[in-house]
Formats: sequence, structure tokens, C-alpha cells
Amino acid sequence: MWIVPETAIADLMTPEAAFDAVEQVFAAMSRGDARNFPVIREAIGHADAIYGFKSGFDRAGLNLGLKSGGYWPGNVAKGLTNHQSTVVLFDPDTGRPRALVGGNLLTALRTAAAAAVSVKHLARTDAKVLGIVGAGHQSAFQMRAVAAERGFERVIGWNRDPAKLARLSRTAADLGLPFEAVDLDRLGAEADVIVTVTSSFAQILTSAQVRPGTHLACMGTDTKGKQEVGVSLVSRAAVFTDEVAQAVTIGECQHAVAAGHLDAGAITELGAVINGTAPGRTSAEQVTLFDGTGVGLQDLAVAAAVVDLAMARGVAIEVPF
Amino acid sequence: MWIVPETAIADLMTPEAAFDAVEQVFAAMSRGDARNFPVIREAIGHADAIYGFKSGFDRAGLNLGLKSGGYWPGNVAKGLTNHQSTVVLFDPDTGRPRALVGGNLLTALRTAAAAAVSVKHLARTDAKVLGIVGAGHQSAFQMRAVAAERGFERVIGWNRDPAKLARLSRTAADLGLPFEAVDLDRLGAEADVIVTVTSSFAQILTSAQVRPGTHLACMGTDTKGKQEVGVSLVSRAAVFTDEVAQAVTIGECQHAVAAGHLDAGAITELGAVINGTAPGRTSAEQVTLFDGTGVGLQDLAVAAAVVDLAMARGVAIEVPF
Repeated sequence: MWIVPETAIADLMTPEAAFDAVEQVFAAMSRGDARNFPVIREAIGHADAIYGFKSGFDRAGLNLGLKSGGYWPGNVAKGLTNHQSTVVLFDPDTGRPRALVGGNLLTALRTAAAAAVSVKHLARTDAKVLGIVGAGHQSAFQMRAVAAERGFERVIGWNRDPAKLARLSRTAADLGLPFEAVDLDRLGAEADVIVTVTSSFAQILTSAQVRPGTHLACMGTDTKGKQEVGVSLVSRAAVFTDEVAQAVTIGECQHAVAAGHLDAGAITELGAVINGTAPGRTSAEQVTLFDGTGVGLQDLAVAAAVVDLAMARGVAIEVPF
Repeated sequence: MWIVPETAIADLMTPEAAFDAVEQVFAAMSRGDARNFPVIREAIGHADAIYGFKSGFDRAGLNLGLKSGGYWPGNVAKGLTNHQSTVVLFDPDTGRPRALVGGNLLTALRTAAAAAVSVKHLARTDAKVLGIVGAGHQSAFQMRAVAAERGFERVIGWNRDPAKLARLSRTAADLGLPFEAVDLDRLGAEADVIVTVTSSFAQILTSAQVRPGTHLACMGTDTKGKQEVGVSLVSRAAVFTDEVAQAVTIGECQHAVAAGHLDAGAITELGAVINGTAPGRTSAEQVTLFDGTGVGLQDLAVAAAVVDLAMARGVAIEVPF
């Protein structure tokens, strides 16, 4: 079997390759060719850790496996990332393990790629201003991936702790884009595309702050109780997601559904838009919202892509197994 | 991280080491120190395969991880085992992957070890005749593991297809024990310890065939619908299991519980007997029955033991990760 260590991923994987992998697997999910299995997520009662896995099978890409790992809050003090992920791919014809792939950087890339795929298919083509809410580790990946999808002329950002906005400023500079820190009123009033990427448990951005025509990619809410935007913004928007079952239970949609303002049947799979079997944006004034919850098939898709790249470049490590 | 390939396991692992690992983890489960997570089991819609995971965390043994794999019915035609298993262990302090271990032989050893642990703690000490129902791949492992726990003088066996009984005969010869193929009436009338290890979906052995004082280890039933012994035998016996939640849903107990002849509260964890917090056999005439359903913690326990052995002997393969 093949090993692609975490340390090898940065030189192999690109936002473009992650984009293609995620777009393809969203399309496969919507066609019924790919399916996520139930998620396991457990507080283990040791090191305050949350451990679990996301898994699935893509019959179109012949990609079977899981991402295992979780959240270890004490890791940073040890010089490690708090989120630890490892992907194991299996041969769907025999069940034998095919590859073990470091999943930390891949998780950031596949999450950013999902937002970028939503921007490609849902944002106005004339979008000029990109707004980012949140300035944590994931925010830079989001900006890089999303910026590639439209002719953005500037980036504006907000974060609860303004000291961390330097990350957004640096990333925008790398992309050759001017950056400005703004309050939430200005962010909503000026941005054509907004990515929310926080770990908030209460609404940050409200419907009144967001102007018509905006596309939002809400990427932070992946757990029961988390929330980034107001319920009235979700119910005002045309809502899209990676997987409806997750959106209504652990995604940004959970609150609007619980409040009776949104029906699961009104949420469109982004894959259906990619496949052309459901409409995306239907007017320039419409607010579109992508609820990115994160599915195991995304992890498998980017891991399979990186294994192909690693084998092509001769950097995959073969071990007898 | 460490790799212990499937091909290395046979030279490393012994029934004795598997026994110790399984006995310890059953005890930890019953103390509340170790917990299995929900099982994922999915028909993937490709190659007729069933794929999934068993997982858990043993806080006493600091053993975290999963066994992934499943059943690929077309494998034998390709020269591979139909059941394919791979164990991934994680460092519970950081979430980083610690070891990848071939799980095929380990699965056979840990299943046999569970039966042997039940025999140690539940069978009459004067047991002389070992009966085996079933002659598939797993039956030889069962005979070897169980035979070590009592001073057995002979082995008797039954299988639906008598041609396969040669496996039991060969294994008994290896152990220096006489073997005789018998019908089910003789098997129940003569055996002091009976292991059932089939993939039957209907009762094979009935209560009327089993004499007082017998210990049964029912190891074959691990899925809704499977059944090896009659409901009246289960309700007559003092019933023990690895995990009550599995016993009543996918184990041999499922039928007696569904028929209203057995209450989940009347089933004793084998770990409680090991810990001395619940009685085992209470009389020489009592029929005891162990419902071995197979839990992820058994897989993690034997995999951790084999990693220790592999590292001690310098045969674990270290890969950067």
C-alpha cells in the first residue's frame, strides 16, 4: 500500500486540484453515485478530545474509505495542530487498504474548495468585493480558493479579535489584492461574496446587513449549536448545501429549520446545480447561501487526488501490507 | 508511525497474547474504562461488498482507534480472503496516527480468544470433551484457543457439510487430541464445552440436545437474523456476553429477547465476571452461554499487543508521517 505523509502534501496538492476533486464528488453525490456513511463523533473522555470519522464511497471515482481523527485542544501547546486527520483509502474491488494519507492540510483545502465551488456556481459573475468573516487558520485557505473564482478587486474582513486580521491582510497581499478591516455593517453592505469561517455559537451577520445579490458561503457551522448568520438571512436566501441531511442537523440551516422558517425540501444540493439538474442563482438580486457542512467524500476525493499526484511524482512511499 | 503488515502477524502473535489482550479489555469495558463507539456497516453497492468500522477507546490501555474493512465475496476467486480488516491505532494524547496493522489474522485470533476467555471463567473445571459446531476458517482458531483452557481429552465436531470436517480433525491432531465427527444429538450429549462458529440463519443446536453443566460459546451470530442455537437453550442458560447492547441486537440473544424469553438486564458482561463484580457459573449443573458478538475494542487490544511485539523484535516498519 501507499503512504503519503502529512509533510508531503503541501508540495503535491494545489487549490485547483482540490477544487476539481470536490466539484466532481459533489456532482457524484447528487447523481446518487456517491454516498456518505453515518458520521461517528465521540468525546473520548481523555485529553478533552473529540474523536471520530467521516466515511463514504464514490462509485464513480471508485473511492472508498474514511477520514479519522478529531480535535485535541492541548495539541498547540505541544507544537501540533489541534485538528488531526488521517485518511485511509481502500480498494473497492477487494477491501484491501490502498493508501494512508495525512489529512490535516487536505481538510483545510477541501473545505476551502467547497466554498470555491459554491462561488463558481452561485455567485454573480460580476462580483468585485470579497468579504471574509473570521481570521482563523482556515480563513487564509478560504480566501485563496474563493479569490480564484471571480475577478475580485479587493478583500474586506472582520474578526472578533482584530489582532488576528493580519492573517487576512497577509493573504490578500499574497494574492495581489488590497485588504481593509471593516465592521460588519460595511462588510455586508460592500461585499458581493461573503465567506463566514468562524467557530461561533451565535449569529454574527444579520439579514439587515447583507445587500441583495450577495452570495454567502457559510463554512464554520459543523456541529449542533454553532451559528454564524441570522435565521432571517437563511430564510431570505436561496439555500444550497453539500448534504441536506447534515445541513439541517449540524449545519448553518439547523436554526432556520428548527424555527420552522426553512424546510429541508427547499434546500438544494450544490451537486444538482453542478449537474444542471437544479437551478442555481435565478436573478442578480437574489441572495444565495451555501451551507458547507463538510462530508467524508470530500476528504476521500482530495486524498485520492493527492495519492495520484504522489505516485506520478514518485514520492508516495510503498510499504508491504 | 508504525506499520505491521498482515504477513508479519503470524510470526508475532500467539493465542496466549490474544487471550491476555481480550481478557484485559473485557475487564476494562465492564469497569467503564473502555467503550466501543457505534458500529458502521454499509452495503456499498459495488462488488457485493459490506464495508464498515468498529472502533472504541480503552482509557486503561490508552488504546484508541478502529478496525476498518468488511466482506468481499469475490475475493476468494482472486486468491484473497473474503473478510478484509485493517486496524488503525491513534495516540490518545494527540490524535496522531500511531500504527497501521493488518487485521485479518488478528480478527480470527481475537474472536477465538473471546471464546477462550469465556471458557476460562465459565466452563466447569472438570470439562473433558470439547464440541465444535462449524468447520469454517474460524473453527480451527476456536479449537486451538479454547483447548488451552481446560484439560480436554477429546474433541467432537459437526458441520453441515461433512467434507469440511477434515479441518477440525487436522487441528485436533495438531493439538494431540482425538477427534470424532458426530451428529448433533451426540455432540450435545457428550460435550462439556461447545463452541458454535457458523454463519447460520436458523437454529442448529436445541436445548433438548444439550446436557446440564455445559458451557456454550456462541461465536457465529454477529448480524441481525443469524442464529445458531434454539431460543429455549438461551432462556435456559445463564447468559454472558462481551457487550449487552450488541448481544440483544445482532448477537445470539436477539431471538430470545425478541420472543420475550430473555431480558437485556439478565445478561451479564463477561468482564464483570473477570472483575469479580458478577458471579459466573453458580452450579455444576448450570448451563452457561457466552454470546460473543465481537467488539472493536478486542481488535484494538490485539493490534496494540502485536505492535508492541513487532517493535520489541524490530520488525515494525517505521514510516514518516
